[in-house]
Amino acid sequence: MAVFSVFDHQMMSRAIQLARKGLYTTRPNPCVGCVIVKDDQILGEGYHQVAGQGHAEVNALQQLKDNGFSSEGATAYVTLEPCSHYGRTPPCALGLINANIARVVVAVKDANPQVAGKGIAMLEQAGIQVDVGLLEDEAFDVNLGFMKRMKTGMPWVTVKVAASIDGKTALSNGVSKWITGSAARSDVQRLRARHCALITGIETIIADDPQLNVRYEQLGSLKNTLSPSSIHQPIRVILDSKARMTANYQLFAITSPILLVTTVDYPEAVKAQFPAHVNVFIASKDLQNRVCLHSVLTHLGQTCNTVLIEAGATLAGSVIEHNLADELVLYQAAKLLGSAGRNMLQLPDYHKIEQAPKMLLKDKRNVGQDTRFVFRFN
Amino acid sequence: MAVFSVFDHQMMSRAIQLARKGLYTTRPNPCVGCVIVKDDQILGEGYHQVAGQGHAEVNALQQLKDNGFSSEGATAYVTLEPCSHYGRTPPCALGLINANIARVVVAVKDANPQVAGKGIAMLEQAGIQVDVGLLEDEAFDVNLGFMKRMKTGMPWVTVKVAASIDGKTALSNGVSKWITGSAARSDVQRLRARHCALITGIETIIADDPQLNVRYEQLGSLKNTLSPSSIHQPIRVILDSKARMTANYQLFAITSPILLVTTVDYPEAVKAQFPAHVNVFIASKDLQNRVCLHSVLTHLGQTCNTVLIEAGATLAGSVIEHNLADELVLYQAAKLLGSAGRNMLQLPDYHKIEQAPKMLLKDKRNVGQDTRFVFRFN
Repeated sequence: MAVFSVFDHQMMSRAIQLARKGLYTTRPNPCVGCVIVKDDQILGEGYHQVAGQGHAEVNALQQLKDNGFSSEGATAYVTLEPCSHYGRTPPCALGLINANIARVVVAVKDANPQVAGKGIAMLEQAGIQVDVGLLEDEAFDVNLGFMKRMKTGMPWVTVKVAASIDGKTALSNGVSKWITGSAARSDVQRLRARHCALITGIETIIADDPQLNVRYEQLGSLKNTLSPSSIHQPIRVILDSKARMTANYQLFAITSPILLVTTVDYPEAVKAQFPAHVNVFIASKDLQNRVCLHSVLTHLGQTCNTVLIEAGATLAGSVIEHNLADELVLYQAAKLLGSAGRNMLQLPDYHKIEQAPKMLLKDKRNVGQDTRFVFRFN
Repeated sequence: MAVFSVFDHQMMSRAIQLARKGLYTTRPNPCVGCVIVKDDQILGEGYHQVAGQGHAEVNALQQLKDNGFSSEGATAYVTLEPCSHYGRTPPCALGLINANIARVVVAVKDANPQVAGKGIAMLEQAGIQVDVGLLEDEAFDVNLGFMKRMKTGMPWVTVKVAASIDGKTALSNGVSKWITGSAARSDVQRLRARHCALITGIETIIADDPQLNVRYEQLGSLKNTLSPSSIHQPIRVILDSKARMTANYQLFAITSPILLVTTVDYPEAVKAQFPAHVNVFIASKDLQNRVCLHSVLTHLGQTCNTVLIEAGATLAGSVIEHNLADELVLYQAAKLLGSAGRNMLQLPDYHKIEQAPKMLLKDKRNVGQDTRFVFRFN
């Protein structure tokens, strides 16, 4: 096992910090950062910004060259194993070899079992010292969705809920404006902006007629680093088992992609009215004749690293109940809504505490007047 | 209005810190701290420890004397207006006058409208400069219960709840061991130890057969400053509208006071079996033929500054619904119990969010793995 110095840790921390800059823009590619160093001096650094454009290593080497430095004998810190295949860009491992890099420190191997190790092998065959595993967990966390999808074909699934301290999302009559404050609502916009797709149910569309898009003006501090055109809109996925959707809802006015998921196809007359940015996916049924959640997520896993569930208690609870959720993000308002209010998640009647969903608290922080909890299911 | 220096603030902060040392032991008396200063030097300090023993001013003057100092021309910082009446001890205002104190700084006036201002007037008549209102809110907060009772005759009422993040206290079958962790349960012991009385319902006694006492070994850090014999046990108040209590429950084995509150008296044969530390109070009925909560609290207000409600969702919710609660202390576990679980508070079906109880978040902190919220109702 490689031994890493304090300086190694500092440089990889910096590389991870750079990788995170791509959180909102690299998908479906992973976020990667790279720092190139010689004699304790940073010669160049870079990160992957947008799929199809330069990878982190290429950008770092370019900056090094622009700075008038030589990469001969330098050390490169990379948050993810350099790629070894020709895609839209040539393999990064080759770029590091051609640049005469002497040592490459890799935080985490590629998650795809068919690819993992090949980039490292290519570097080692060229005589480069490769040290793997520095700040591995931290680097892995930056690409949870990409890593899961590469390994399993399924996206990382996050359930988002906003509720009161007594666990209610609305009064019994549905009134819920506003449980949480504006800071929490802005945070939800940033959460949406990080996700490849967003799932809700037809009931939510009928009840609230939401647009379900990312609203640039509500992104808060993110506006300092991202321009309106660099924001990706998540695919809006509507689960509509019985094909009840019609074209007269607000979400159609926004031209980013929409995926309608149903178990029976829509009548041709209805389909003809859906705009061009709408696709339909006929999913298999579950035992209750609803859309099979597993089949929807498998379908989305073809292109999406991350999926956000913003839905009512039935759908959100069902995702958790069927062990399809990886994460729960709860925005909790310091309010009581009363026992008659709507429960935040519809879950089964457990008889032992051990039967309730197992979760690990990953993060808890104040967001304005509210608290944001991030839980991981296990 | 008096103008206070930074030094004044420092000295009164110290006095408040001293006052808090009495939180577990002074009742039904208020917590009071006193610091005596001359030429920017602390000559003596003290606090009220136990009802019937020396008041803060007396203890501070005694320490000053023990230290070999003279109180002539000194300034006394007192968290509560010095008393002006002969009780078990002579008036403190007189003590300060006899000690030739030149200036008295008072944080907050006595809350009892019949007494407020008399101690200050006594000092001023003796030619002492009296400045009132320094750190008033902070000093008030140390004696919320005493202040409310002196002003209104009613005790300060705190509702305590332990629940999951989805607002449940137990599964549908009642299983609840353990929702919160050992640190939270130890904190509840300290909460109990601060209260004059503890109210629960007969349903809780029948379901759980609890002892409802303060267990010294579970007081955690408090054991460093308090001996077992200095702990006061709160009066255990059981609401038992239909006189269902019998003598064979565990709480009777502990010899601290018990008050059974009913609307109909117990049969003589049952009463004869209750031990000597049990009293019965026949309260008036409410519209549902249950014990009238207002009448119980009024009765307790004769002797109790603070009352803790540790009860099921019906009783705890009812106290809040009827605007009888001053504070809600919620221990929240980072767990889901599921929508079929028991709601933390039984409250009405509200139609507007404005109808739900109005609360102000006063404090939120980690207690072990759990979060403790303190809300004030308004």
